[in-house]
Amino acid sequence: MREVDVAIIGAGSAGLTAFSEVNRVTENVVIIEAGVGGTTCARVGCMPSKVMIQVAEDFHRREYLATEGIMGAEHLRLDIPAAMAHVRKMRDRFVASVMGGTVARAGDRYIRGKARFCGMNILDVDGQKIKAGKVILATGSRPFVPEGWERLPVPVYTSDTLFEQEDFPASLAVMGTGVIGLELGQALARMGVEVTAFGRSGRVAGITDPELNTSAVTAYSREFPLRFSRDIRVEPIAGASKVRIVWPEGSVEVDGILAAQGRRPNLDDLGLEPLDIPRDEHGIPLFDPQTMQVGDLPLFIAGDVTGSLPVLHEASDEGRIAGYNAVNSVQRFRRKTPLLVVFTDPNVMQVGQTYQQLRDAGTPFEVGQVSFEGQGRSLVMGRNCGLLRVYGHRDSGALLGAEMMGPAGEHIAHELAWAMERGLDVFEMIRLPFYHPVVEEGLRTALRELAARVDRRKARWELSFA
Amino acid sequence: MREVDVAIIGAGSAGLTAFSEVNRVTENVVIIEAGVGGTTCARVGCMPSKVMIQVAEDFHRREYLATEGIMGAEHLRLDIPAAMAHVRKMRDRFVASVMGGTVARAGDRYIRGKARFCGMNILDVDGQKIKAGKVILATGSRPFVPEGWERLPVPVYTSDTLFEQEDFPASLAVMGTGVIGLELGQALARMGVEVTAFGRSGRVAGITDPELNTSAVTAYSREFPLRFSRDIRVEPIAGASKVRIVWPEGSVEVDGILAAQGRRPNLDDLGLEPLDIPRDEHGIPLFDPQTMQVGDLPLFIAGDVTGSLPVLHEASDEGRIAGYNAVNSVQRFRRKTPLLVVFTDPNVMQVGQTYQQLRDAGTPFEVGQVSFEGQGRSLVMGRNCGLLRVYGHRDSGALLGAEMMGPAGEHIAHELAWAMERGLDVFEMIRLPFYHPVVEEGLRTALRELAARVDRRKARWELSFA
Repeated sequence: MREVDVAIIGAGSAGLTAFSEVNRVTENVVIIEAGVGGTTCARVGCMPSKVMIQVAEDFHRREYLATEGIMGAEHLRLDIPAAMAHVRKMRDRFVASVMGGTVARAGDRYIRGKARFCGMNILDVDGQKIKAGKVILATGSRPFVPEGWERLPVPVYTSDTLFEQEDFPASLAVMGTGVIGLELGQALARMGVEVTAFGRSGRVAGITDPELNTSAVTAYSREFPLRFSRDIRVEPIAGASKVRIVWPEGSVEVDGILAAQGRRPNLDDLGLEPLDIPRDEHGIPLFDPQTMQVGDLPLFIAGDVTGSLPVLHEASDEGRIAGYNAVNSVQRFRRKTPLLVVFTDPNVMQVGQTYQQLRDAGTPFEVGQVSFEGQGRSLVMGRNCGLLRVYGHRDSGALLGAEMMGPAGEHIAHELAWAMERGLDVFEMIRLPFYHPVVEEGLRTALRELAARVDRRKARWELSFA
Repeated sequence: MREVDVAIIGAGSAGLTAFSEVNRVTENVVIIEAGVGGTTCARVGCMPSKVMIQVAEDFHRREYLATEGIMGAEHLRLDIPAAMAHVRKMRDRFVASVMGGTVARAGDRYIRGKARFCGMNILDVDGQKIKAGKVILATGSRPFVPEGWERLPVPVYTSDTLFEQEDFPASLAVMGTGVIGLELGQALARMGVEVTAFGRSGRVAGITDPELNTSAVTAYSREFPLRFSRDIRVEPIAGASKVRIVWPEGSVEVDGILAAQGRRPNLDDLGLEPLDIPRDEHGIPLFDPQTMQVGDLPLFIAGDVTGSLPVLHEASDEGRIAGYNAVNSVQRFRRKTPLLVVFTDPNVMQVGQTYQQLRDAGTPFEVGQVSFEGQGRSLVMGRNCGLLRVYGHRDSGALLGAEMMGPAGEHIAHELAWAMERGLDVFEMIRLPFYHPVVEEGLRTALRELAARVDRRKARWELSFA
């Protein structure tokens, strides 16, 4: 039986980072991958979706060109097979980069196979037994598809299969208005697919701030209809390669479905059941997010399998923490300021605590906001759509969180997250240098409003005495 | 004789901010504007140039579209008169916003006229005498045009006149490769004008880092030729509406010139000469940049007339400092981390100390850098061109400055300037949260390299113990 210090199950973003971290202490580590490898991010997640979004955005821009005196945009057309070939070409480059990095360095410590627990420290990988001092579970997640949809007479895509398509049906129902549904739904609509998006909660892109959500629904509805109901049915149409999506107020016939109702952790068929592992109601092992250890077992967990927000930088941090703690005395790590970017156009972003979290916790907070409708730089770019709401503590002005839909959201998100990570309050933030004309001046407008709500006298000082 | 507490000469960005600041303490203040008003920024600077750049960038994007499967870009053409009408329409909106703001609130305290000093505290405004307790000089600057160019047989534009044009000549020599020359030169080239840019120093866009400058010259040269020489002559061509620009290695005939060789402070005809004001070799009153006071006189100065970098946020800060000190006991203010953004594509930016300043001061520093050629997010956007160089103190890793040409430079500039403003070192900065896939990950690559050069052991820690 092969004996290793650490066995990592899953060679995705979390597993690979864990591998690098473990490798600093011991080379006697294996990483076991049941799939083709290449990470969810590079193969079916962040990267191909961002390329498709870029194509869609560049194509969509044609609607603004005449305003600028650029004529002939009516001749632009999207060759979807060419666009998707471009998406896959870029994706292949990113996957190759993953496979050529840590995977290549792992050499024969990278094992292709399906791992199952035969005991807390013993894994069976397609018949080969491996005894591991510690195990890191980093098996990721997969898109959820409702039972029975495989029998529908239309293609049902997920983010796992969408980027493999040569072409798309004329019409698609996007089931789910979360991050993935909204990103891909908007991109598909811009690429010319007749998209109808369906959500249960009425919330889009993970936004929790009701005012922002209303703005976002209005903005995205200009491009494709969004239907919200807790009672949405998918009905096959007899004798047709279509389905009818029915909600209380109406129905629509579509040629295909994109299932974007969330993801499920890959915990099946791992042989976890016989082991004495404390698990939550979804079957996810209970762990400490600051150590990534499961109870006090020789078992660590990292990445999307934890059921937390499936974003790469958190998966990496978790892999690093799990990897460190698997080969050192267990330390508690400081987790970073939450940061989520949705690459719709305009971007959506959330940093720090969400509006809902602040409300639920009863935290006394004030809101400063800015609309991007009249914001200088946004107007100049012809991207003057959106709303930013920044939350600060009512007494101290400490920055607590922000939610936004707007231009350059991916950058504003970093600026706010970094300010929060460093513990800045709103009065310190309005004293930072802001160039002109930049979208950041919109951020400053929101910060100024927040500052004035917290302490009008203090809000006056945007310069400091030497 | 009208007596006021404060008279402000010049209703540009600096003067208007000074007015607001003074107005907090006394309403007995006048602001005197010799021109049409509306600020250099809104009327002939930041705003119209950014709109023109946006048009040019959107038009230029057509060259990438086929890569993405967007076909028919060969049918796009730029209607320059329509584009320039768009530029002016946006500009008018920004000018109206300026005039409707502080100017409107000033009411009859806004005086249209030419102010001249008749004594340290007495101004003559077109015959009307005003006695002022304090005077704030905020007369701005104007483009420099070499003597005699008004007699050339071709139009000689400056940023003051360019945006008024209905159309452009087929070919233009852009004289000067600084910020304005490069921004407008690239935009004009992208709009279809045959641009040749001429510089003396070999430096572009104010870049001082030789390695970055080489990259930038290479990048921009792909779009239009850049010629560098200390011996560039402009020769009229007999009987033709053209001039020949001659440099040692060659010559080119052009239909017009854009003069972008810098700006001169508006100090003429102010009656300053008889007053006992200490001035530098350019005639600019000597002042303390932390108080904006001229010597210990009842005279303050703010904005572009100071001869410092003509950027709005500094002009505003200076106006605010001058305004405060004109009506309070004089305080020294902390000036903010230097921040310059050049809106070329890719952006150029400088924050903190420049490479040249660090070299001149003999500061021991290390450089961390990243090329954007292979940077993930930049590749996805099809904007993978550029180089970022970050300077940190060799011993402490304190962030000292950065220069960059690259995508999202306007945002990366803020992120770095804010980190410097808050005194972060490189080790603290690599521990901030970075989303994926974002241009900020390129910044992190440069920071990681810098951190490793300063202290390899410390550079390893991108997470903190709780």
